[in-house]
Amino acid sequence: MQRKALISFLFFFIFLSASNTTTSKKHKSRNPCKSLVFYFHDIIYNGQNSKNATSAIIGSPPWGNKTILAGQNHFGDVVVFDDPITLDNNLHSPPVGRAQGFYIYDRKDYFTAWLGFSFWFNSTDHRGTLNFIGADPLNKTRDISVVGGTGDFFMSRGIATLMTDAFENEVYFRLRVDIKLYECW
Amino acid sequence: MQRKALISFLFFFIFLSASNTTTSKKHKSRNPCKSLVFYFHDIIYNGQNSKNATSAIIGSPPWGNKTILAGQNHFGDVVVFDDPITLDNNLHSPPVGRAQGFYIYDRKDYFTAWLGFSFWFNSTDHRGTLNFIGADPLNKTRDISVVGGTGDFFMSRGIATLMTDAFENEVYFRLRVDIKLYECW
Amino acid sequence: MQRKALISFLFFFIFLSASNTTTSKKHKSRNPCKSLVFYFHDIIYNGQNSKNATSAIIGSPPWGNKTILAGQNHFGDVVVFDDPITLDNNLHSPPVGRAQGFYIYDRKDYFTAWLGFSFWFNSTDHRGTLNFIGADPLNKTRDISVVGGTGDFFMSRGIATLMTDAFENEVYFRLRVDIKLYECW
Repeated sequence: MQRKALISFLFFFIFLSASNTTTSKKHKSRNPCKSLVFYFHDIIYNGQNSKNATSAIIGSPPWGNKTILAGQNHFGDVVVFDDPITLDNNLHSPPVGRAQGFYIYDRKDYFTAWLGFSFWFNSTDHRGTLNFIGADPLNKTRDISVVGGTGDFFMSRGIATLMTDAFENEVYFRLRVDIKLYECW
Repeated sequence: MQRKALISFLFFFIFLSASNTTTSKKHKSRNPCKSLVFYFHDIIYNGQNSKNATSAIIGSPPWGNKTILAGQNHFGDVVVFDDPITLDNNLHSPPVGRAQGFYIYDRKDYFTAWLGFSFWFNSTDHRGTLNFIGADPLNKTRDISVVGGTGDFFMSRGIATLMTDAFENEVYFRLRVDIKLYECW
Repeated sequence: MQRKALISFLFFFIFLSASNTTTSKKHKSRNPCKSLVFYFHDIIYNGQNSKNATSAIIGSPPWGNKTILAGQNHFGDVVVFDDPITLDNNLHSPPVGRAQGFYIYDRKDYFTAWLGFSFWFNSTDHRGTLNFIGADPLNKTRDISVVGGTGDFFMSRGIATLMTDAFENEVYFRLRVDIKLYECW
């Protein structure tokens, strides 16, 4: 009796395991394998702040120029950045890396942007890069994709939730980035 | 006898299972876990259509300008867009989301482009984003990568097949996008 | 006694297997499922080489222009390229595909770039595309992400290690790209 039960149980388990293999996509965990929080700080070049600026307008729409963000919600402005990453919201905290890439304001009737950038880490805590792309509708929070990583973040994938933590005079802004990796290697 | 068979079977299964783990990459399914079809509509700003335009040239080669696509197959033109997404090929159908991002014409001797964009959905059917990048050789059909997603498309990956469904006077074009996701969470 | 051992063993195995499922991310192999080496060749348009040039500056910072890379380590220059891919380091070898996309110089105080591009293959060996993004600190070697692929490289992911193999007069450079795919379908 017990042996029969054992055999039944074994077959049940084999069945379960086999079905697991073929439909494994459905069972992927939504618990992050790594969670990280960073801030990065963007100071846009405005013709007068070349010493402090960390970003610059490098493409603008037909009706725009490169020292003032264009009308129509900056539609068409492309900004290249190389911003310090810090662990807290203080611009003057020691940077743990650089956020490097670009954003494009891509809508005429309200603010929204498209982002392509990398976090490049070179601290005692982290070495390597994380690569991000996504639409940024500039809501209170918005999610973009972590599409890959290198070094400590070898082959990582996940979601980054962005929050605008400060926005001053269209020259300085600070983003809080909550990174949750769901694929770690 | 039966017990021995059971033990053998168990070991065989363990072996199978172990080998499954290490070579699991080879068993990934090429059957999509989700299939979707959308259209999106791009109206390029030409200096006279600012009311209807959904995109604008924001970078051009040394020999170009920002209201007319450049010679040499538009090589070097960067176009930023915020286009309506519809379920059928009618520009005036109710949009289910926006296609936001940019394309670059990247070849002198014939048409080809590079694309980075997101689908941003906000309808009763779908909420969330899908993120795309890839080369677009402007063949009849061409495949780009779905590199990530958020919301309803949390962590998705897949392939998007693009087809130019209409192309009028270098001002309006319509793309049909067949999305097949092979990684769903 | 033996049966008890068997049952214990079975339960141990079930436990192991279950824990495997939930933490499977940790067991992913760091042995590449495919390794490839290519070279690609970039000739930047400088106002005089339009016949040979394979790339052009299409966005520049407020202090720059489109025929000479800008001061401050080219910060803000956007270059669009369509470069031949070869199997060895000879520019005149028969190309096996095209490297198409863009790079942005994104730092004022030393050279560093951000890359978004695709390899488009159309040879007897390979058909399809590989899509790359990442930060390029222009160290001796640097890693970027392979975020997707199509055709022969359906759904691939991996790491590409870049090495500058030649750099001449800010007009010609050659990159060696060591691609290691860790996710093959």
